[in-house]
Amino acid sequence: MADGFPTPQDAEDAFYDAFEAHDLTAMMAVWGETDDLVCILPMGPVVQGRGAIAGVWKQVFSHADRPHIVVHHRQWVESPDLAAHVVEEQISFPATAGTPPAMIATNVYRRHAGGWRLVLHHASPPPPPLRG
Amino acid sequence: MADGFPTPQDAEDAFYDAFEAHDLTAMMAVWGETDDLVCILPMGPVVQGRGAIAGVWKQVFSHADRPHIVVHHRQWVESPDLAAHVVEEQISFPATAGTPPAMIATNVYRRHAGGWRLVLHHASPPPPPLRG
Repeated sequence: MADGFPTPQDAEDAFYDAFEAHDLTAMMAVWGETDDLVCILPMGPVVQGRGAIAGVWKQVFSHADRPHIVVHHRQWVESPDLAAHVVEEQISFPATAGTPPAMIATNVYRRHAGGWRLVLHHASPPPPPLRG
Repeated sequence: MADGFPTPQDAEDAFYDAFEAHDLTAMMAVWGETDDLVCILPMGPVVQGRGAIAGVWKQVFSHADRPHIVVHHRQWVESPDLAAHVVEEQISFPATAGTPPAMIATNVYRRHAGGWRLVLHHASPPPPPLRG
């Protein structure tokens, strides 16, 4: 998949598959080959560039537990060469009971010569629970 | 400005000017006229559609204090019809001393027939301070 993905959605599916599998090679195959990439994990800093982003995912994947991720699409805006998807990420761990609140993420994909790649992942924490 | 802005950056400038001025009319002139708009404020829910987004900003602007906002660009990805900017928003209030940590935001602009409009604002909290 060195040439990218047929659609933004294919790139997104590959992103979350790599995230669930803790597969760094597959994860970095989703990201663009350019150096204008940005990755922001919930409550994390703005991380820029392929090398630094690979370092972030290497750290995430160093945790023993692999997550189960269910993605709900909230909105997408697409053009011939750029696409933005807003999703909710329901991330759970087999060892932990219950369903945690969903993270909110904006994913931006760009079409290169050979296909679509991820260029921006901006994830942020969910709203605090309503007071009962 | 019913027709949109000449560039994504012009739309962005108008967005933060309206935010600082607590000007709801100017704010909603920055947003697109379509109904696929998304606005996520820090720790807030995913708000969709012009009407709901206007309600969110009306509530923000109901606070007496108007903020002073300094925007730092971290990255932008642009195509002929869609553009995504990642910025840090340094939001301070005259009545409060000190410089608060910057929010992180992704802003997505789309070119309509008449110009550029905002279609997605995703803002999230800054990382917690480093332990000294």
